[in-house]
Amino acid sequence: MNSIGTPINISWCAYLPVTTGSTIQVDILSLNQTRKKSYIIQVPDHQVAGHEAGLGKLGPLIDDSGRFYKPLQGDNRGSEEVAFYESFSSNSHIPEHIRKFFPMYYGTKIMKASTGVDHPHMVLQDLTSARVNPSVMDIKIGSRTWAPDASEAYIAKCLKKDRESTSIPLGFRLSGLQVYIDDESRFYKPDRNYIRKTGPDDVRLLLRKFVSSNPSADMEMGTGSGPGPDCSLASSVYDGPNGILAQLLELKAWFEDQTFYHFYACSFLFVYEKRLGLKGALSNAEVKLIDFAHVTDGNGVIDHNFLGGLCSLTKFISDILTEIKDCTGTNGQVEL
Amino acid sequence: MNSIGTPINISWCAYLPVTTGSTIQVDILSLNQTRKKSYIIQVPDHQVAGHEAGLGKLGPLIDDSGRFYKPLQGDNRGSEEVAFYESFSSNSHIPEHIRKFFPMYYGTKIMKASTGVDHPHMVLQDLTSARVNPSVMDIKIGSRTWAPDASEAYIAKCLKKDRESTSIPLGFRLSGLQVYIDDESRFYKPDRNYIRKTGPDDVRLLLRKFVSSNPSADMEMGTGSGPGPDCSLASSVYDGPNGILAQLLELKAWFEDQTFYHFYACSFLFVYEKRLGLKGALSNAEVKLIDFAHVTDGNGVIDHNFLGGLCSLTKFISDILTEIKDCTGTNGQVEL
Repeated sequence: MNSIGTPINISWCAYLPVTTGSTIQVDILSLNQTRKKSYIIQVPDHQVAGHEAGLGKLGPLIDDSGRFYKPLQGDNRGSEEVAFYESFSSNSHIPEHIRKFFPMYYGTKIMKASTGVDHPHMVLQDLTSARVNPSVMDIKIGSRTWAPDASEAYIAKCLKKDRESTSIPLGFRLSGLQVYIDDESRFYKPDRNYIRKTGPDDVRLLLRKFVSSNPSADMEMGTGSGPGPDCSLASSVYDGPNGILAQLLELKAWFEDQTFYHFYACSFLFVYEKRLGLKGALSNAEVKLIDFAHVTDGNGVIDHNFLGGLCSLTKFISDILTEIKDCTGTNGQVEL
Repeated sequence: MNSIGTPINISWCAYLPVTTGSTIQVDILSLNQTRKKSYIIQVPDHQVAGHEAGLGKLGPLIDDSGRFYKPLQGDNRGSEEVAFYESFSSNSHIPEHIRKFFPMYYGTKIMKASTGVDHPHMVLQDLTSARVNPSVMDIKIGSRTWAPDASEAYIAKCLKKDRESTSIPLGFRLSGLQVYIDDESRFYKPDRNYIRKTGPDDVRLLLRKFVSSNPSADMEMGTGSGPGPDCSLASSVYDGPNGILAQLLELKAWFEDQTFYHFYACSFLFVYEKRLGLKGALSNAEVKLIDFAHVTDGNGVIDHNFLGGLCSLTKFISDILTEIKDCTGTNGQVEL
């Protein structure tokens, strides 16, 4: 049984808006002609990294039925990502409890892109569609973002980025984040230039801000002085049986064994809804894997590069939980 | 209590032989002048990788009391390795069950080197001194053998080697091995040119040969045809509560947590005695970590590069055990 779902054929959709949040009613006609249904297509509200749709710019789109349309990138990256999704969907050796970490895949579709012209898209699950004000973090995993068989020019380009970012020292780097504050202030969303320059201490701070009700609050790193982010949501988001840490450990166990795929330049997407977290509900945090343009065949070898980065990130998060427990003297459990 | 032992001061020793296996009686006088003891100094018999002592060539020496004298390498590598041993020896956070994986360190000593001239040496535990006919394997761990703060020239040199070897695809590479056959044939010891060119399939084969009574037997990889290495010692060497796999898993748990050191270009040394293994005794296999010329401060981050390689190697070994159990239908336990 394949939880990815049977690919559906969506054959056509009309003009697409390019202004974030604006919408337009379009018709999408299924290929088998048995039904006709309308969807509202728009630019995603909660994208924190990657190419963004804009005037004349190719970027992802979403509809109001929970689908994410990712335009196929040129230079083989798009077709490589499709090949991964097709392989993963049909791979009967992927355990069901692992499939849930991957977006659902519904096939490909040529449709009018954000640029206004027809372009092939992957039709995927929109990972934030069920959220009202999602806090989102995108973390690129692995100290090496290039596959061994990549071109010399591509390796040189990636190696430079890996060395300039925290990929080499930490085994992962932040690609973007937004943290919901309240209906008035909306989101804390540091700009990409800042994210690009983050060092290890910034990463530690941003992982704390991601689970704080005051994410804009800075603290002096090293001394720990200043009020700093309060980490008030750390227990409900990171900790507990359904928290992000538990999900990462579930993936870790799989990565210690799986030799099907090597995931280069692939990201974790962390998503949660603050409203639910503050109510002390069981964690609504989700971990998903995204961006598979550089997945290669594992050839019977585990993905030691991804696994190393995953373990490093896991340690950063468990260190935050340990520090909070040490400070508060509690066991960090969510009080229901 | 520090199991590394208190450094002893050995002040002087005389002329040293440079022919493998030849010996000479020399005097070593302790600095505190309280005792005078004679040791036989010689070139190691069971070295499988690294610089070798020879006529005019600087290399390690051993004595008959179980000490290994490693000449300090130039260009800071020697002093960096001493700095690591000094730090590790005095680091009270290293658990006792982890210290056993490191050679004992007895300090440094200026003594007549294999070249015949005085040179500073590290005085370490000779890891094969208690063995008669040890089978030995040296495996360099990590897909990256360079530290982030290394020079551009050094990084380029290492990266080239990492890409040409199995370091990048597997997360580790073989540096050398010898497998004891019998008193007549002595050792199977492939030459370094072969080792340097090993690909993933060769590595799989050599890990099987390492625990075989017929290590010279080749098999056609891919088809699995031909008699091939018999893996008759796999259960006693790799498996069981004291086997190499169990020791690697013990180290893995530590590497998932320790943030003191990052071990670049460091090796595992696997050592066992066939005579004991064949008798069905409990495994006498030992895992040791060696070569610390490129250890850097962990700065609160786990060594994801080493951990990834360690997990990959662990998977290779557990795959061999699984295949054997699948073939024989046994649970692979040693019959006592």
